Amino acid sequence: MAENNKTYEKLTKKCREIALLASCEAVLGWDERTYMPRAGAQLRADQLGLLAGMVHEKFTSTELGDWLSELEGSDLVKENGTPEAANVRETRHRYDKEARLPKDLVEEFTRVTTLAQGEWVTARQNSDFKAFLPWLEKVVDLSRQKAEAYGYEGEPYNALLDDYEPGATVDMVSETFKLLRNDLVILLKKIKEAPRQPDRSIVERPYNVDLQKVFGESVAAAIGFSFDSGRLDVTTHPFCSGIGPGDTRITTRYNPNRINDALFGIMHEAGHALYEMGIDKKNNFGMPTGESASLGIHESQSRMWENQVGRSKEFWNYFYPQAQRIFKTSLSGVSLDDFYGSINAVQPSYIRVEADEATYNLHILLRFELERAIMKGDLKPTDIPGEWNSRFEKYFGLKVDKDSNGCLQDVHWSSGLFGYFPTYTLGNLYSALFFNQAKKDIPDLGDRFSRGEFKTMVDWLRENIHKHGARYRANLLCKRVTGEELSHQPLVDYMNDKYAGIYGF
Amino acid sequence: MAENNKTYEKLTKKCREIALLASCEAVLGWDERTYMPRAGAQLRADQLGLLAGMVHEKFTSTELGDWLSELEGSDLVKENGTPEAANVRETRHRYDKEARLPKDLVEEFTRVTTLAQGEWVTARQNSDFKAFLPWLEKVVDLSRQKAEAYGYEGEPYNALLDDYEPGATVDMVSETFKLLRNDLVILLKKIKEAPRQPDRSIVERPYNVDLQKVFGESVAAAIGFSFDSGRLDVTTHPFCSGIGPGDTRITTRYNPNRINDALFGIMHEAGHALYEMGIDKKNNFGMPTGESASLGIHESQSRMWENQVGRSKEFWNYFYPQAQRIFKTSLSGVSLDDFYGSINAVQPSYIRVEADEATYNLHILLRFELERAIMKGDLKPTDIPGEWNSRFEKYFGLKVDKDSNGCLQDVHWSSGLFGYFPTYTLGNLYSALFFNQAKKDIPDLGDRFSRGEFKTMVDWLRENIHKHGARYRANLLCKRVTGEELSHQPLVDYMNDKYAGIYGF
Repeated sequence: MAENNKTYEKLTKKCREIALLASCEAVLGWDERTYMPRAGAQLRADQLGLLAGMVHEKFTSTELGDWLSELEGSDLVKENGTPEAANVRETRHRYDKEARLPKDLVEEFTRVTTLAQGEWVTARQNSDFKAFLPWLEKVVDLSRQKAEAYGYEGEPYNALLDDYEPGATVDMVSETFKLLRNDLVILLKKIKEAPRQPDRSIVERPYNVDLQKVFGESVAAAIGFSFDSGRLDVTTHPFCSGIGPGDTRITTRYNPNRINDALFGIMHEAGHALYEMGIDKKNNFGMPTGESASLGIHESQSRMWENQVGRSKEFWNYFYPQAQRIFKTSLSGVSLDDFYGSINAVQPSYIRVEADEATYNLHILLRFELERAIMKGDLKPTDIPGEWNSRFEKYFGLKVDKDSNGCLQDVHWSSGLFGYFPTYTLGNLYSALFFNQAKKDIPDLGDRFSRGEFKTMVDWLRENIHKHGARYRANLLCKRVTGEELSHQPLVDYMNDKYAGIYGF
Repeated sequence: MAENNKTYEKLTKKCREIALLASCEAVLGWDERTYMPRAGAQLRADQLGLLAGMVHEKFTSTELGDWLSELEGSDLVKENGTPEAANVRETRHRYDKEARLPKDLVEEFTRVTTLAQGEWVTARQNSDFKAFLPWLEKVVDLSRQKAEAYGYEGEPYNALLDDYEPGATVDMVSETFKLLRNDLVILLKKIKEAPRQPDRSIVERPYNVDLQKVFGESVAAAIGFSFDSGRLDVTTHPFCSGIGPGDTRITTRYNPNRINDALFGIMHEAGHALYEMGIDKKNNFGMPTGESASLGIHESQSRMWENQVGRSKEFWNYFYPQAQRIFKTSLSGVSLDDFYGSINAVQPSYIRVEADEATYNLHILLRFELERAIMKGDLKPTDIPGEWNSRFEKYFGLKVDKDSNGCLQDVHWSSGLFGYFPTYTLGNLYSALFFNQAKKDIPDLGDRFSRGEFKTMVDWLRENIHKHGARYRANLLCKRVTGEELSHQPLVDYMNDKYAGIYGF
């Protein structure tokens, strides 16, 4: 046992050192997407490629594999569910996958995706798919190589999905997604034909960017984002980066003519950040218990703060008077009810990150289907715009006017994040389950929001979700917290209830 | 020969990889001093310590030493003065020094100085020397350990000075410094008793910070700083960081009640940046020919743009009308001559980086003397404020009112940069020599400045200084460019001439 403890210590020490090196990558990645001068792109790609290769090499060392083997047979991990058992299990899972990747592929993947992100930013600005195509082809090719190297059962997509949602497979999620889609179609029909239609124009007025920043920061601070251990900056495609203990950064982009985008974007990223800040990284940095359970769980946190909290009446009971004082011209004379209706107005639109809660998941389902086909090799990069646009018209009843409103809108493919998109919908599903449970456990939760008190909610999340890190896989965590399995029903119920109130159907 | 070429190729490839890793440190260092949230300090110290240790380990590998030994006996480096010979010679110089440092010391030095910088920022804000003392003691102790590990002839300071000014020794510079000091005392007396005294109050009026930023950026752009491959940000102690090919960043700090600080600070850092941008890093990254010759040469570039250019009448012939349009209130009715007198007014003052050209070097000489005593162990950190203040009064005739105006003002000691300060005065001396030569080679240089044409000057610097990197050591470079040895005379002549015009003595 003493011997095993020593080995476990060596493992955690080594993993901490690897995480430290990986956290340097995170700083460079943040810088690349916020402040890096354009001419530094090649250097940055080389830097990140080098670091990724070094992290890969250190993590896949024989030594580390031997330690894992030794520990796997030991008493230390005998009892399922202990932090030690989880750390050994999840580290093994990652080790086995990572060890199957050639170092060259890891370096090349990082270099190419770093450069491709810069190219994507320009291509998106110019809505120029052709300029981006050669990069997309490279990234797709490298992603397919990655999936092949990992190996998979069923289809290649499974190998990649597992990177973000450990243990999840296409078969497991697609059934739930189908049920969700059926119910969404019904809901959208009810909304379209509803007797009451909120005035969307309220949120689409001039909102001074400097004031949006002030308001956004004050909201982030109020819900618990710490500006002492975090930052908020501007970027093309907003993200949250949990760099390491004491350093979690979020980003946003401001639309001077719409209040929703930056505001709910900031709440979304702050939700991610609260998760990162709530994980005990001080003690567990580098081990799975010092990391998030999955991206689905991560998105459950961001989407919950964005939607269940940020788009709730109770939240605005507290914040609307402040908003009216700050945005005098655009909000004077607008009632809270009308504002609440406006921020929740449902309307099929091009851009996923600006979508309302009801149509949001259709955006994801479309990407999920396309990604599967791309990874299978059934859909060639050059055919993506055509396929995107025809499916989009079918799902949303809208003709895509330009690729920047279509397949060029998201950063993910340039970054090589194939397999990531489904976690957004998984996050929405989990968020409904978690939020129901929080309301049961904290009966006056809405009243607390109404008086600007969010600490109880944060504490509940810390205790039930954040502090565990990846101790439990997503589905088990959900079961432990809510007693329920993942299902489309709670999210559908939540939306039906909410929109019935707004649209009066 | 073919064999040697192969070895040389291996060496440059390896050094490039090491430089790539070191450039990651540079990004993290820049971030630490600009945007990093405070709570991230410990993580940053650990990250930088890890990277510094890795760079050290890679650079001091036996392999690299063997390659150097093989090349040293070869035809490839036979001819002195070729890039290959310089690269092997200077890499050997660094290799031998670096190899004498234990890895633990390198890591600890980096970790401690990273944390100490954050502590210094706070201590400086609160003018609290006591709070900084334990950190200063640690840094002094580690710096003395470093000097001992390097080994030295004469006194420990020589070992550290050589890090910044390869080949320089205390004996070599102190004689020149003494001559300079004697002449400065005479000059300052003439200035004090001069019949004409410029109106200093002109530069000490309200200058809107946003407008200072716009003006500073436009000046930086005009003299050739590329915002496509660089940035300008705000920090506590301004610096320039040449991160790597395509990425050179400068920083400044704004004083809303004085135009000199940020403006000449930006020109200073832009001067550094032009040097970094002018070195052929694309082809020589990682080799001495891809780096600066010395910090003295580096400072000659920054001080030249700040002083010989930025504080010249010709520069303001072009820029003053713009300045008057931008800073309407503070400059309306002020003549160009009065403004020129005001930006050049000589006045003993506390802060080095805000000092005029005449008193500036006294600041350096004071630090140089203190640093030598600290490194010898003759001056204990706890006694620094007393010693600083008594010497300051002797040199400047001013009683130091608080340590933030005294020994806490500079970032250098918290960063472990003992041995760095003399390079500022070396830079001033070199700048006078170089600028004289530039005026000979470009007879209408002043006219060009008067019409806002700085490209000829930049091209001259590129051709004569920048493009060589560290191919020639500082003194040899100076001899090649100007035909002269380093001396105090050209700087003294330049100042006498300039101040005679302003003060009418």
